[in-house]
Amino acid sequence: MLEKIEFPQDITKEEYKERMKTMKISLGNLQRKCRELKVPVLILVDGLEDSGTGEQISKLMEALDPRGFQVYPIRKDTEEEAARPFLWKYWMKTPAKGEIVVLDSSWYRKVTIDFFHKEVGKKKLPVFLDEIRCFEKQLVEDGVCFIKVFLDITQEEAKTNKGQKINKKYKSYHHLVEDVLEATHTEECPWNLIHNQYKRQTGLEIYNIVIKKLEDITRKLEGEMEREAQGIVAQEPEESEQSKKVEDSIFSHISLDKSISREVYEVKLQEIQKKIKRLQGELYLKHIPVIIGFEGWDAGGKGGAIKRLTEKMDPTGYKVQAIGSPTEVEQSHHYLWRFWKEIPKEGQITIFDRTWYGRVLVERIEGFCSKAEWQRAYKEIVDMEACFITKGAIVLKFWLHIDKDEQERRFRDREQDPNKQWKITEEDWRNRGKWDDYEVAVTEMIEKTGTPSAPWTIVEGNDKLYARIKILEEVVAAMEKGLNKKL
Amino acid sequence: MLEKIEFPQDITKEEYKERMKTMKISLGNLQRKCRELKVPVLILVDGLEDSGTGEQISKLMEALDPRGFQVYPIRKDTEEEAARPFLWKYWMKTPAKGEIVVLDSSWYRKVTIDFFHKEVGKKKLPVFLDEIRCFEKQLVEDGVCFIKVFLDITQEEAKTNKGQKINKKYKSYHHLVEDVLEATHTEECPWNLIHNQYKRQTGLEIYNIVIKKLEDITRKLEGEMEREAQGIVAQEPEESEQSKKVEDSIFSHISLDKSISREVYEVKLQEIQKKIKRLQGELYLKHIPVIIGFEGWDAGGKGGAIKRLTEKMDPTGYKVQAIGSPTEVEQSHHYLWRFWKEIPKEGQITIFDRTWYGRVLVERIEGFCSKAEWQRAYKEIVDMEACFITKGAIVLKFWLHIDKDEQERRFRDREQDPNKQWKITEEDWRNRGKWDDYEVAVTEMIEKTGTPSAPWTIVEGNDKLYARIKILEEVVAAMEKGLNKKL
Repeated sequence: MLEKIEFPQDITKEEYKERMKTMKISLGNLQRKCRELKVPVLILVDGLEDSGTGEQISKLMEALDPRGFQVYPIRKDTEEEAARPFLWKYWMKTPAKGEIVVLDSSWYRKVTIDFFHKEVGKKKLPVFLDEIRCFEKQLVEDGVCFIKVFLDITQEEAKTNKGQKINKKYKSYHHLVEDVLEATHTEECPWNLIHNQYKRQTGLEIYNIVIKKLEDITRKLEGEMEREAQGIVAQEPEESEQSKKVEDSIFSHISLDKSISREVYEVKLQEIQKKIKRLQGELYLKHIPVIIGFEGWDAGGKGGAIKRLTEKMDPTGYKVQAIGSPTEVEQSHHYLWRFWKEIPKEGQITIFDRTWYGRVLVERIEGFCSKAEWQRAYKEIVDMEACFITKGAIVLKFWLHIDKDEQERRFRDREQDPNKQWKITEEDWRNRGKWDDYEVAVTEMIEKTGTPSAPWTIVEGNDKLYARIKILEEVVAAMEKGLNKKL
Repeated sequence: MLEKIEFPQDITKEEYKERMKTMKISLGNLQRKCRELKVPVLILVDGLEDSGTGEQISKLMEALDPRGFQVYPIRKDTEEEAARPFLWKYWMKTPAKGEIVVLDSSWYRKVTIDFFHKEVGKKKLPVFLDEIRCFEKQLVEDGVCFIKVFLDITQEEAKTNKGQKINKKYKSYHHLVEDVLEATHTEECPWNLIHNQYKRQTGLEIYNIVIKKLEDITRKLEGEMEREAQGIVAQEPEESEQSKKVEDSIFSHISLDKSISREVYEVKLQEIQKKIKRLQGELYLKHIPVIIGFEGWDAGGKGGAIKRLTEKMDPTGYKVQAIGSPTEVEQSHHYLWRFWKEIPKEGQITIFDRTWYGRVLVERIEGFCSKAEWQRAYKEIVDMEACFITKGAIVLKFWLHIDKDEQERRFRDREQDPNKQWKITEEDWRNRGKWDDYEVAVTEMIEKTGTPSAPWTIVEGNDKLYARIKILEEVVAAMEKGLNKKL
């Protein structure tokens, strides 16, 4: 149950100045400490119309080194923003490690003002609330120091502050806000609801809240670092289910001897490519975004398949996004940030050559993230794809499957062909050594993240021609289905 | 004089296919070579309305690995783009090292279609043409492999292709285009003007042009690398004017004993900060962007001055951009790219804590760029600032000046004050050792880059209070001047 912070009376200007002085020094020091410890800080100051969020943010900023923070006023969506999933513009504003971001108003616009003005339908409200809860949880679990403040005012105060539009319907709007706050007052991301009657009191209270939270998080991190320095490492839970070869894996049911002739291939390819080009145009007109992810064994044929998929497409309407190791900037954000960044606008197609599933494949196997992290990732990924689908996107994921012998043949081929040598590296051979680990990881991934609206397609890839046609046909089917739904 | 490439007749489909086949292999190989050699490639395919640029780009793309290129169709500016200097959206699309970017239409829109439709005034045309020439030159000098193709069609062909709007005025529009092409057909960035009568011929010709250019650039780079491997290093021109202490430098005329009392400071500060807050609001309403750059000796007082400058500003309307070493992504672009990225929208203020002048200061002195590069930078920087000014920006640059003794005092202070120790590092002492080199560089910088619309202000900084008030007063004066101009 969310309780409102109220003050019986204001304090004097002198007392305020006195207390502010010490708090500013503390906050300044904490800002530097957060930078050193690389803590990303996100402070959200939301409130009723004319409740004075801007003024309170200005006060808060006075204590901070202006080089280390950024304030974003949240306004109406720009075209670019409106053409992407609702949370996209907020993902793009999440702080990097060591940075402070302050939002003046926030994603709560969508479920309060926009809903109140009927720009968001009734059915969408619970969906957006859910997306918000997942988003906030993900940030906090990733180590973001996240603080939510909401400024409340009474109907009388709103009148005095000339909050005209909402004021006539103050009561019903206020009920909506209360419900939304209650629904998003979670354990991980609780609200700080303040009655902004006495501005000095509110100002001090916000300082208090921020200082306390930053102290907690920095103290915790310093403690962890100290324990680490002393050699006390947090034990990962005992791995009971050893990574062993899965006997009854999905792979055992796949017959890799499917193939088609070169003649059939050529005819079909021409035909399907034409169809895809046409469908691309229709999707553009209907503002439907398409997201296609490719994963698969090394030398599984991703490159060739993507080539055939895009060959006849209008090049201004699609993008192939190759995913390699993250850059520094990407590493300083949540691991999903770099994928959110590349999410297509309405009517555009983005094809990912390797995807966010790297978290539960290579990062899991190479130990680039902790067990807790990759285990959490299944749900995080499903939640992310759900956001795309809410925006009307067609989401498809392919696993290009070949067997171990076929991989070896292809590796040897590449080594011998001077035009293909660039395709094969030492790392490919090393990865091959971990084939069994990958089988376990892939099986778990497909089981846990295949959903009706974002299904996995396992592609029998030993015959490249067969594989390409299967992929292109799946894409066509999904595109047609998406278009029919939007009729 | 620009000559048009024309073909007497088309070739057969068979011959076309035959020739295309080998060219596709060459181009694919060259793409990989460019990636290895980290060559950024920018291909611009522009043309008359309905001249078939899209179709030709599609053909070109067929040869390329879709992971390594990006096609951008140039459409009408979005709000974000329209609110920034004209070239901003194009800077943001320049290729990183090893990438290929293809533009379908380009910045030439501005000086052809937009001008023809009177969206660009007569006075602005030569200005934009100049900005374009400078932009292209900068890219090429930075090592971008830049190719410009323009597709021409006759009035009859345009009619057949249903180019309606322009067609009525084909002749006068065509004259404009001819003039623009001629004016931008430079030695560094020549046009390839093709009459797109026979599409197969055009397709082959574009392949030819691209292949030839990529071969040239990769061959040249490989040659350089080979010579380097053999120990033959390109000699930098003999430095005749040794970096010696400048006797009659600007610094000798500066009296650093200027100061004001704490009382006067407090009163003035309050007053000016209020004024700045008010001016910020007016600038916002009049859509005037403000760009303020801070450079100065270490411990010169930049941080404190910026703090006072922004303290009372509306935090949603300004950003302080601290400039440190470039990230990987930034390093893979032109050195000015990361500054262009942060250029404020209309009505917003960006304050740079250290700036693009790093090129002619730290990068020059530490040898992070070649002599040719920093010498070229003076003009490049002036040209860049001119683009901001064309967009109506107020541009101000401050050099915070203190003497060597004062710097030492401040360094010692910082070392002793536990609240300030974070401000001082080994590097600061190392930089101090190069004081004389910096004096030479700073003098040259101020002489070569101070312009009436983007002036340098040298701030006598030994007395911090005096310095802050001087800076704030300069900002106020510049803001008022900018507002009056826009009356």
